[in-house]
Amino acid sequence: MKVTILGNNSALPAFGRHPTAQAVSVYGEVLLIDCGEGTQSQMQRFGLRWRSMHHIFISHLHGDHYFGLPGLINSMSLLGRTAPLHLYAPAELKPIIDSILAVADTVLSYPFYFHALPEQGTVLLVDDSSFSVTCFPVEHRIQCHGFLVERKTRGRKLLPEKCREYEIPAAYYEDLKQGNDYERKDGLLVKNEWVTEDGPAVKRYAYCADTLFTDNFLPVVMNADTIYHECTYLEADKEKAIARYHSTATQAAQLAKMANAKQLLLGHFSSKYKELEPFREEAAAIFPNVFLSIEGIAYEV
Amino acid sequence: MKVTILGNNSALPAFGRHPTAQAVSVYGEVLLIDCGEGTQSQMQRFGLRWRSMHHIFISHLHGDHYFGLPGLINSMSLLGRTAPLHLYAPAELKPIIDSILAVADTVLSYPFYFHALPEQGTVLLVDDSSFSVTCFPVEHRIQCHGFLVERKTRGRKLLPEKCREYEIPAAYYEDLKQGNDYERKDGLLVKNEWVTEDGPAVKRYAYCADTLFTDNFLPVVMNADTIYHECTYLEADKEKAIARYHSTATQAAQLAKMANAKQLLLGHFSSKYKELEPFREEAAAIFPNVFLSIEGIAYEV
Repeated sequence: MKVTILGNNSALPAFGRHPTAQAVSVYGEVLLIDCGEGTQSQMQRFGLRWRSMHHIFISHLHGDHYFGLPGLINSMSLLGRTAPLHLYAPAELKPIIDSILAVADTVLSYPFYFHALPEQGTVLLVDDSSFSVTCFPVEHRIQCHGFLVERKTRGRKLLPEKCREYEIPAAYYEDLKQGNDYERKDGLLVKNEWVTEDGPAVKRYAYCADTLFTDNFLPVVMNADTIYHECTYLEADKEKAIARYHSTATQAAQLAKMANAKQLLLGHFSSKYKELEPFREEAAAIFPNVFLSIEGIAYEV
Repeated sequence: MKVTILGNNSALPAFGRHPTAQAVSVYGEVLLIDCGEGTQSQMQRFGLRWRSMHHIFISHLHGDHYFGLPGLINSMSLLGRTAPLHLYAPAELKPIIDSILAVADTVLSYPFYFHALPEQGTVLLVDDSSFSVTCFPVEHRIQCHGFLVERKTRGRKLLPEKCREYEIPAAYYEDLKQGNDYERKDGLLVKNEWVTEDGPAVKRYAYCADTLFTDNFLPVVMNADTIYHECTYLEADKEKAIARYHSTATQAAQLAKMANAKQLLLGHFSSKYKELEPFREEAAAIFPNVFLSIEGIAYEV
């Protein structure tokens, strides 16, 4: 399970950095979280295929989080997409997209489903066999949501050579994946651990969107493997952060520590900062396992 | 008078090419024509300052001609623009922009004026002391406009040394610029051509937007210094061009020839073509003074 950063800047493009977008890869599925201007080009650039993408999540309706969406929706249609696409976003985005399509006389080549995010509460949005996505409210100047992506386990992983060695018929493989033993006709009980190993673990990635420092959503992100938390500002500019409903690197680290996360990913850097290393240093003093989100890098969750 | 190409591709970003946008520079003023996704970044990249820009013209509401507009409008506000901005576009764009601003609770930092383009007819949009812009209808799948940008002359250019030599008071300089002679108190008639030279000539740039090949707008673009004409396709794909209300390189050249233009600029290349030189070659057989529009290049009109 990986997170590829497509845009790590806040508000404006600057210093070659783009507005916010991330792609979470889970078992070959690509989940797009936020879609700032230029996201379709960034996906091309970093080899992320929209053919593997069926769900897009928009945290809130500040332009730096969704101005790349109309272009992406349009381009997939021009390129003949047929697979359904599900968009989860604040309700007010729907009439905007409808108008953009209508004025261009565009009929999309694929089924497009708009799902309005709930105005409040923590709500399960997608519950697939291999992953789930839950939204939770964060504290921003307008309605804004974080997203918790959970990779489910797929059961135990078969060791094909061992299975053959014990002459287990393929029809029983699914049973083995569920952790069961197998009894042969000759009476030998083949222990599950002889022919399987641990499958991929459950992993949890919490994208905390744009937010004031708050512990309101702490229960949802508790014990996450990786927390992405914005830090638009350094602690020296804390007053600005508060005034604009944003956070500092110190606050991001505090949140990760309180949540007992394994790893912290920092992003949404203000255009006033050319150098990003000070964000990492500031956060590392509180929460050592911290990384700057850098465009094009895929972080293991 | 120059045209800087910010995006030369049709529909999709491809091969590093961006969707349509151009900046026409007239006496230090920057006029933006169309604004595909990524235009604000392209302006940064090529050193075009929005502080010199007060007018934006959108030919039609296919996304590849305006999806960069919300980001540009927003960014200028975040950066504290105070000068008024005038947007000329099909009327249906206004509610879309209004909604985009409303859902973000955005109040722009500068006066923003929306001017709906006329549903038909050739109409003067801006008549400044140093330039004018006229829109004219072209033939596309939806309402679509070309723009004729005319640089006005600024009268004759003074030769300061000569003026001093003939002891002409500065108060008469404006009179000299208008082409008048000056009679000195000692009776000497100073001929205008002794102390001035030709000022910048009237220049006409015709942006023909997305269009089927048609001579409907020929009277408007007649004798233009430079015609920009789309050629989404090569002549071999003429059927596709017709079906999609686009033109071929051959047709662009025919139009330029019929219009008795001095120069032709080709653009809006389909993503199906990686190489662009065949467009130039095809057009040059009919109209020799032809250039490919290449991003980042500023073409003298």
